[in-house]
Amino acid sequence: MKVGIVGAGMVGSSAGYALAVMGLASSVVLVDQNHDLAVAQAEDIAHAVPFLSSTIVEAADYVGLAGASVIILAAGVSQKPGESRLALLERNAAVFKDVVGNVLAVAPDAILLIASNPVDIMTQITQRISGLPANRVIGSGTILDTARFRSLLGRHLGISPQSVHSYVLGEHGDSEVLAWSNAKVGSLSLADIAAQVGSPITEHVRATIDDGVRNAAYKIIKGKGATYYGIGAGLARIIKAIARDQHDVLTVSCVTPEIVGVKDVALSIPRVVGAQGIETDLMPDLVSAERDGLEKSARLLKNSVESIRL
Amino acid sequence: MKVGIVGAGMVGSSAGYALAVMGLASSVVLVDQNHDLAVAQAEDIAHAVPFLSSTIVEAADYVGLAGASVIILAAGVSQKPGESRLALLERNAAVFKDVVGNVLAVAPDAILLIASNPVDIMTQITQRISGLPANRVIGSGTILDTARFRSLLGRHLGISPQSVHSYVLGEHGDSEVLAWSNAKVGSLSLADIAAQVGSPITEHVRATIDDGVRNAAYKIIKGKGATYYGIGAGLARIIKAIARDQHDVLTVSCVTPEIVGVKDVALSIPRVVGAQGIETDLMPDLVSAERDGLEKSARLLKNSVESIRL
Amino acid sequence: MKVGIVGAGMVGSSAGYALAVMGLASSVVLVDQNHDLAVAQAEDIAHAVPFLSSTIVEAADYVGLAGASVIILAAGVSQKPGESRLALLERNAAVFKDVVGNVLAVAPDAILLIASNPVDIMTQITQRISGLPANRVIGSGTILDTARFRSLLGRHLGISPQSVHSYVLGEHGDSEVLAWSNAKVGSLSLADIAAQVGSPITEHVRATIDDGVRNAAYKIIKGKGATYYGIGAGLARIIKAIARDQHDVLTVSCVTPEIVGVKDVALSIPRVVGAQGIETDLMPDLVSAERDGLEKSARLLKNSVESIRL
Amino acid sequence: MKVGIVGAGMVGSSAGYALAVMGLASSVVLVDQNHDLAVAQAEDIAHAVPFLSSTIVEAADYVGLAGASVIILAAGVSQKPGESRLALLERNAAVFKDVVGNVLAVAPDAILLIASNPVDIMTQITQRISGLPANRVIGSGTILDTARFRSLLGRHLGISPQSVHSYVLGEHGDSEVLAWSNAKVGSLSLADIAAQVGSPITEHVRATIDDGVRNAAYKIIKGKGATYYGIGAGLARIIKAIARDQHDVLTVSCVTPEIVGVKDVALSIPRVVGAQGIETDLMPDLVSAERDGLEKSARLLKNSVESIRL
Repeated sequence: MKVGIVGAGMVGSSAGYALAVMGLASSVVLVDQNHDLAVAQAEDIAHAVPFLSSTIVEAADYVGLAGASVIILAAGVSQKPGESRLALLERNAAVFKDVVGNVLAVAPDAILLIASNPVDIMTQITQRISGLPANRVIGSGTILDTARFRSLLGRHLGISPQSVHSYVLGEHGDSEVLAWSNAKVGSLSLADIAAQVGSPITEHVRATIDDGVRNAAYKIIKGKGATYYGIGAGLARIIKAIARDQHDVLTVSCVTPEIVGVKDVALSIPRVVGAQGIETDLMPDLVSAERDGLEKSARLLKNSVESIRL
Repeated sequence: MKVGIVGAGMVGSSAGYALAVMGLASSVVLVDQNHDLAVAQAEDIAHAVPFLSSTIVEAADYVGLAGASVIILAAGVSQKPGESRLALLERNAAVFKDVVGNVLAVAPDAILLIASNPVDIMTQITQRISGLPANRVIGSGTILDTARFRSLLGRHLGISPQSVHSYVLGEHGDSEVLAWSNAKVGSLSLADIAAQVGSPITEHVRATIDDGVRNAAYKIIKGKGATYYGIGAGLARIIKAIARDQHDVLTVSCVTPEIVGVKDVALSIPRVVGAQGIETDLMPDLVSAERDGLEKSARLLKNSVESIRL
Repeated sequence: MKVGIVGAGMVGSSAGYALAVMGLASSVVLVDQNHDLAVAQAEDIAHAVPFLSSTIVEAADYVGLAGASVIILAAGVSQKPGESRLALLERNAAVFKDVVGNVLAVAPDAILLIASNPVDIMTQITQRISGLPANRVIGSGTILDTARFRSLLGRHLGISPQSVHSYVLGEHGDSEVLAWSNAKVGSLSLADIAAQVGSPITEHVRATIDDGVRNAAYKIIKGKGATYYGIGAGLARIIKAIARDQHDVLTVSCVTPEIVGVKDVALSIPRVVGAQGIETDLMPDLVSAERDGLEKSARLLKNSVESIRL
Repeated sequence: MKVGIVGAGMVGSSAGYALAVMGLASSVVLVDQNHDLAVAQAEDIAHAVPFLSSTIVEAADYVGLAGASVIILAAGVSQKPGESRLALLERNAAVFKDVVGNVLAVAPDAILLIASNPVDIMTQITQRISGLPANRVIGSGTILDTARFRSLLGRHLGISPQSVHSYVLGEHGDSEVLAWSNAKVGSLSLADIAAQVGSPITEHVRATIDDGVRNAAYKIIKGKGATYYGIGAGLARIIKAIARDQHDVLTVSCVTPEIVGVKDVALSIPRVVGAQGIETDLMPDLVSAERDGLEKSARLLKNSVESIRL
């Protein structure tokens, strides 16, 4: 499978590196308005390949994206001093208008995978601009927050994160909701198992994990200025589900007709992902505080997106 | 990690093949009282390796098992015409007495992984003979029944079996219990999700899946005389959890101090498996019919094992 | 990628098991005139999948092969008491006439991968029957003999078989030629390296390795009646080169316009294998004894194939 | 296997990311004098894990390296304006004196893997400082130059880089020698194969590939300021050979008693790498221009290293 990446900064290149190292794509094409950067990233990643897989990694113009099954959109501009959040969003929307037009001109059948922040809003904007069916415009959403939630629970319990199942819902950002009420170990209730293994979920444990999930990115940004390895691997994980048509349950963002009473908004809930993109949504059963939190998160996103002029 | 396999028939060799093809062990040693068979299986598997991994595969006497971290016991005798089930069990117990003695003489620190049927009874016998702590004597139990349960649920829902979580409990055999009441898709209730995706779990669906899980082996035995690929991969899966210290939740058999009121019996429930063998048991919450079924299964196994003279 | 397997015996099913365990195919379809056998093998392999990959494994009629990119032909009849080798070949040719017709009716664009013995002759017959371009009819040839050659050299030198490069040429059978003269370790001369590491290739070493390569199958057949794991993994290795378009150098059989003076004969030399099947032949430089051996092997195959009435 | 990484910049963290994504280490520990950076890199990489493997990734002080089997040294200081190359080297040597002392105090049995540039000189300095046997102090050397050489040859021929065998010898730097005379495709002569596939190695092709290998890093540095993905994967590749005791042939740097007449100098030739570090050196047969080039490269390194006061 051919994968395109528009935006060859650290997030885009970390995703390309993960795809190449694991051999998940037969071909990876990097596009960036700074062509020298795209070439440098492609060459650096290509040097990793002979040891490990047979992925072909190249830099190209948009026309090189022809035939790509999935295209990661990791482009975007940075905030100028004194610029409002809304003004920044509108500038980013303008960038995406160009990018999406260029992409669809050569790869009209590709699935678009949005990695630029604020990811939920950029996902919704991309869906509008592109006119594609919503299930083919996927935002990385809370895939990383969910992974982090499971890691911290797994570490607390002494159980593999891959045997822990729990979700972070809503916005990838401050209003996100940790769905504690339906967390499971295997198919079993988290509370029961935590008690059985002698590591109960006290208020303190819960607050620590909640903080760990919400503030993971801030801690990383403090130490190194940006996050990219985690999200790079998360994007590779979504692409694996598509490439192998796995019908995996992942928490990704997508424009959803109606969610806890809010209509037409992009946010994350568990969704089944396969070769066609998003195949089904799986709405979790929530306790009322979680439901309220999710509704608040959805309204906040909805308001943001409506304030933007495209 | 070095893995020993005692019994080079189809089950033992299929496990060795899976381990070699996936590179899960650095060394696999096959032992069989028919040494020509062990040599032939080791050579045939060794030919698969240069394409795919760097596992060393060899046939040896018991002394070749020295240094093995895990030893699969897949030996056993077949039923003679007119022989009672109990007489067969006693003959197999005698075989295991020899095998376990020989194994522990050279590899006293190995984890023993029992694949011979009836697996729960052979697990309990092995634990007694060996005097090892129960967590180091693991039976493959219902690992395959559980895999089958998830596959059939996944196929019904159009969702990856790896996102479906449900367990088959108790005996690996006719008295086993499908724990429908706590089946989940991701962390979500099976019934909810089945309704959401438009594939409800009707009585008919339930009966069909139940039959598919229980009678899978019979269908295979009818067509090819024996089952081995599935169980071979299942054994490789358990070894992966041990080799990489993954703390995975797997339904495996092990002598358990007390289960639904029955004391000191080997059967399958979800258990956490890592480098030390079984690290914790996870007792699921069951509805009363399931609990009754599990108790019946446990008593049946307990009575069988008590009837055997060692 | 969808892979079909016609002939669900031990060779076909071992290939299917390797493909599923490694996740090299998205779908594997088994066809056998004994449909119960195909169903049993498919079910047994399918049980291995939930642990390890997302390959779908099913039994089907020929129509189920529609859409397959590669189809393994592992069917065939066994020798009857008193039957001549030629009579057996003609019966097998008749079986293949049916099989190939049925296969091409539903999958006219598939690459055919021949595993039935005598593999070079069956490859040539299949190419004739099918009328396909020669590069799309590939016999497993000496892929396993070559692997064995490298393993034994690697073991002698204490160097990974994956860093040893040497080929077995000609017939997959008694007339095969070990190309000692151009064997290399990395890019370096075998003789030089063997001297440097203090393990020279004496006449005795050479004879032992030669014997080990030629008689590996006999040793396995003596101990277990048939060989299947090695060839199963070898077939999976060829399919990996096709599925990922790797342009790998493999010694496989194919009808070749001219080889050491013999025209239009199927045998093994190193060939580049990718998504289109065989892309190029790489004729090694040989010393005269090797060249003579290869010519003899080619003539023997050519005579055999010409004696068969189709 | 536990792997330590001292120096949590882009090279060290890219290696850690590759190790985690591929599950090659059970544990990765990052140490940096900027502890916040080590924590940030460890967290960012740890977020990649739940999708893909079960590697534990953590930041720690030196004491956290206890039990590591391999420790990557990727630390170092940058050139100050006006600073001579020699002065820089002496400052880096001083840094390594500290680092190696701290490392060996807690992990006296580890293999040291040097990634800091100039890698050959830092490898020789580390061996001296540490007093370890030379085979346990390995520099990444020309592993990447060799990979690049194979990639470019493979691309020219339309053949997998994994079937092309050729080496870059000597210094990882301007004096390095591309060993064209013994380049092979499989076990076959490059010139023969290039002619057979209709892509001969003309003077122009040779000059282009030579330039591509030598100037790859400059091109990347021009576009993105530094190289890290390629070397990160190269380090992971060396660790794979050690972790799985593969006895692979890799071009890595190591203090060598005598090479083309130069005594006691660290540079790259093909060497066999396994669980004990470097197991054997494989000296290629060279034409006289290559031999002269290698001698020049060796003398240059030898002179550099002798000018440094430790």
